[in-house]
Amino acid sequence: MKRQITIKDIAIKLGMSTSTVSRALRDHPDISPKTRAAVKELAALLGYRPNRIALNLRSNETRTLGLIIPEIEHYFFSAIINGIEEIAYKNDYSVMVFQSNESYKREVNNAQAVLTNRVDGVLVSFSKETKDFSHFQKLIDNEIPVVFFDRVTDELQADQVVSDDYQGAFLAVNHLIEKGCKRIAHFAAPQHLALGKGRLSGYHDALLKHSIPFNSDLIFHADTFESSRKIAHTILKRPDRPDGFFTVNDMSAIAVIKAAKDLNLKVPGDVHIVGFENSRSAALCEPELTTVDQFGYDLGREACQILLRRLKEKNSNFKPEKKVIRTKLVVRASA
Amino acid sequence: MKRQITIKDIAIKLGMSTSTVSRALRDHPDISPKTRAAVKELAALLGYRPNRIALNLRSNETRTLGLIIPEIEHYFFSAIINGIEEIAYKNDYSVMVFQSNESYKREVNNAQAVLTNRVDGVLVSFSKETKDFSHFQKLIDNEIPVVFFDRVTDELQADQVVSDDYQGAFLAVNHLIEKGCKRIAHFAAPQHLALGKGRLSGYHDALLKHSIPFNSDLIFHADTFESSRKIAHTILKRPDRPDGFFTVNDMSAIAVIKAAKDLNLKVPGDVHIVGFENSRSAALCEPELTTVDQFGYDLGREACQILLRRLKEKNSNFKPEKKVIRTKLVVRASA
Repeated sequence: MKRQITIKDIAIKLGMSTSTVSRALRDHPDISPKTRAAVKELAALLGYRPNRIALNLRSNETRTLGLIIPEIEHYFFSAIINGIEEIAYKNDYSVMVFQSNESYKREVNNAQAVLTNRVDGVLVSFSKETKDFSHFQKLIDNEIPVVFFDRVTDELQADQVVSDDYQGAFLAVNHLIEKGCKRIAHFAAPQHLALGKGRLSGYHDALLKHSIPFNSDLIFHADTFESSRKIAHTILKRPDRPDGFFTVNDMSAIAVIKAAKDLNLKVPGDVHIVGFENSRSAALCEPELTTVDQFGYDLGREACQILLRRLKEKNSNFKPEKKVIRTKLVVRASA
Repeated sequence: MKRQITIKDIAIKLGMSTSTVSRALRDHPDISPKTRAAVKELAALLGYRPNRIALNLRSNETRTLGLIIPEIEHYFFSAIINGIEEIAYKNDYSVMVFQSNESYKREVNNAQAVLTNRVDGVLVSFSKETKDFSHFQKLIDNEIPVVFFDRVTDELQADQVVSDDYQGAFLAVNHLIEKGCKRIAHFAAPQHLALGKGRLSGYHDALLKHSIPFNSDLIFHADTFESSRKIAHTILKRPDRPDGFFTVNDMSAIAVIKAAKDLNLKVPGDVHIVGFENSRSAALCEPELTTVDQFGYDLGREACQILLRRLKEKNSNFKPEKKVIRTKLVVRASA
């Protein structure tokens, strides 16, 4: 890299003091408009960039938010990113996104990167592998406000924005029961995630409402397309196969549809399926998927708004806030 | 924010000189292991962060790459991000992603952000709105290597990595003709993008090979799900409706399938459809989509490898390189 152009370089070329140049660049009223224009023109010509850290020391702000997210490909997360960015850019903040790729190690690296880049605040949904949160505690210790969304923890003093997992799951399973299902399988997220627990609990209570006994043999850990397709294949071949499926996300639900078709079972004739997310794919698959809308875009907007409020408050009298975004059953053709 | 802990703070607390503390933190051999341990322990306790710019001035590196991308939701781009990150993290670089959201204005902001954050290098696919590239020229002027991928321009002295758009389109249209199609519509990208031109040209030459006259009435600008579904609806109702469709991406192809179904046309009985991308959705829709695999993951890996080579070379004797990733027809059920 070539050497950075400094205020001194500009001052020398114009025969001015560095203080004059510095004040001209900051539009100080003591400097004449003509001088200001000359200084700025030369600065632009030379490619002068103000020293960012020096700027920060003055304004204490970088106008940048960090976002650490497990997976960019997942529709729900990309909807959240779009919601976050809408609020951020409207308020003159940039958003730098880091993808942990569901890896704890990479996430620790991401947390270090947002720290090193001195962002003003951070939004986080942690990886499935993450069980220790000290890399996020370090951000909080450095007085960088952190807002968790979707995958949240009570172990840290930080704001949380989540979907109403319990309510969404309850609606989904209630719908399956009303469609006549008696043996409903649940494809669940890892149970150390609050969202995994919440959805299982909604499933449980919908059964309870209809006096259907809870059967742990019908609970499977399957939250990817591949694992869900494989498990669905196996259990749909059994004589006591489930007649309904409630899956933790849409990709898992679509995998079940695929598996049922492979086995010449009719959806929704033989098997009813409800997903969770309301992704683009839900409207593309055949039959179109009945699912729970999580409103990722709204969730992202809300998380960013909370973070921006925290930045204004400057952490005085901090009490973490938890915001729950209500979900909605979207009835299509799969159940 | 609280005041940053400095080396001086640590030195005062330990009764050492700042030079001793500084050398201890850098594991200088003149400092005893015991002193080094004591210094590091206190530094960790106080939450000391080395001044990044000072670090940079020493090493000239931030070990961070900037990535500016139009849309995170698009499968192709998320595959590229994953390919880029695989190479980056393997080489101990972090990747900060900025989404332009197809907005020129936001992209200019993104370019400023990567400049301000002093990344070591930048990977770019520009927005559909972008026709002026001076914000990227500014990065090059600051001797930050830039590699363009997918959406590239010859206006700048920078490396390019692209799919073989011409070859992929030729394969797709040739396949449609071999399946018996005579009136093939092309849903095209904007023609100021090189990829838009390349795919149209492949379409044209495949027709030529089979002596089918090129008819500009069959070319439509339609590269989103919504616009493609709407146009397909209109033209599939005409008596001289197309019997084949080659679309610029998979979402457009799936939109045509949906429109055909809405009108009770059989795919592939009445209408044959080939997409471009090989997204996840291509394997999920019904019938499964025949499409051109763009190998986004490989394209991302390649782009990042070129960038890392540039960082090693330090720009001596720069000659931009253009890498073309071959594509492959994936035959499924829609044509």
